[in-house]
Amino acid sequence: MIIDGNSHVTLPLQEHIKDMDMAGIDKTVLFPTTFHPEASTNFTEVKASMEFLNDLLAGKKGSMVEARKKSVSEVVEAINLYPDRYIGFGAVPVGLELDATLQYVDEVIEKNNLVGMGEFTLGSGQIHLLNNIFYASQEFHNLPVWIHAFFPLTFSDIKEISELAKRYPRTPVILGHLGGINWIETVALVKEIPNLYLDTSAYYSTFILGSIINEVPAKCFFGVDRPFGDLQLSKDAILRLANTPSIASLVLGENIAQLLHKS
Amino acid sequence: MIIDGNSHVTLPLQEHIKDMDMAGIDKTVLFPTTFHPEASTNFTEVKASMEFLNDLLAGKKGSMVEARKKSVSEVVEAINLYPDRYIGFGAVPVGLELDATLQYVDEVIEKNNLVGMGEFTLGSGQIHLLNNIFYASQEFHNLPVWIHAFFPLTFSDIKEISELAKRYPRTPVILGHLGGINWIETVALVKEIPNLYLDTSAYYSTFILGSIINEVPAKCFFGVDRPFGDLQLSKDAILRLANTPSIASLVLGENIAQLLHKS
Repeated sequence: MIIDGNSHVTLPLQEHIKDMDMAGIDKTVLFPTTFHPEASTNFTEVKASMEFLNDLLAGKKGSMVEARKKSVSEVVEAINLYPDRYIGFGAVPVGLELDATLQYVDEVIEKNNLVGMGEFTLGSGQIHLLNNIFYASQEFHNLPVWIHAFFPLTFSDIKEISELAKRYPRTPVILGHLGGINWIETVALVKEIPNLYLDTSAYYSTFILGSIINEVPAKCFFGVDRPFGDLQLSKDAILRLANTPSIASLVLGENIAQLLHKS
Repeated sequence: MIIDGNSHVTLPLQEHIKDMDMAGIDKTVLFPTTFHPEASTNFTEVKASMEFLNDLLAGKKGSMVEARKKSVSEVVEAINLYPDRYIGFGAVPVGLELDATLQYVDEVIEKNNLVGMGEFTLGSGQIHLLNNIFYASQEFHNLPVWIHAFFPLTFSDIKEISELAKRYPRTPVILGHLGGINWIETVALVKEIPNLYLDTSAYYSTFILGSIINEVPAKCFFGVDRPFGDLQLSKDAILRLANTPSIASLVLGENIAQLLHKS
């Protein structure tokens, strides 16, 4: 079974399902989004979307509680429409008090049967804001935590995430985008810490992608990061670069199916 | 005609030619390299290669005059072996006096019939080291200058490069890797400055790659950046993302053929 371990809600949904069918992707782990770059019709709109994203990634957008709740409802609606094709993660605001965090996770993640929390997009130096999130994971049967780990995060931020992963050894922690330019040091952490995983999306070199999936094949989850990645090209890359068919199968679906108990 | 506008010498050469044949790439603009990551047989060797690269990209390796001359002789040998398939750029050390720079360009670039200078890998804050290179370009019938413009360069560095491009309006300047995370501001410069171009390799999002090639199709050169990129996957990406076949043709070969007067 081929599972895209990370794509955002893109509209219209039927377009996404059609593309999944064409690329031979059975299921998608769907992530919320507070904006829809795929709706851009020209470069000016793309630019506006990406500037929003850059502010978001720099942690400038704050908690955005209402926007995040709305984005989660888009994920839930999508799952209700295509329950055999979608599994969902839900956005959780950072910076809330512990009680408010636990209440949010209960109401928004648990009650909606979502299987994880994320994508967390933090600015550099903001990793401490995840403390309550990890605590909530422990309270809610170790919900996986998915964290954007490309620019603007530095290796010092990634290292801090890995310390949280060590402190909560039963919480699966997924580092998005292979750790970006810090991939060498990030792979070393992933080798050392059993509950630390890598998402393969946003690779900027297939040489690097290939080196990583063949080195730690059991710790990598195929991800497309739609709308930023393309389903077919992303899947082709894994198939082309994996040294063996069994490595490709692990990365393209078996690993995440095992983690989420889906098959 | 499909031209890979940027790949490094990878050994053995016949392997590269075979891969070009399989991917349907007619010619490659070959760049020198002072190391051969493609020869790595395990992750430890990959890591060592990439640590070398990181030092190189941070400008920590200095002029490396002898290593660069040797790397150029690899390019020249490759062209002599496959004159119909390879065109070459040559490395020029930065930080030499003007006279020494001109003498080097004459002996190493001109006398070997190389068609451009690069890839220049400078640390952030080191762009002023290119002054003599641009002067040499002007002296030698406006040899194109190819500059790595992904990490660790900041937008301030890219802006400084664009000022050099304005000061030398007849020198084609190719910014490698789309400007990296600074692609939005970089595209604005490329639109404004006629002799400023983009190389498409090392894209980390096909959404971004597609937005750029469709916005400034006449200013983009397809690049694989082998060994870091894969010929087939890189070509497939352009074909899949270009809005029209004529945009694909421009990016995949026509633009660079026109620049280098090759067809």
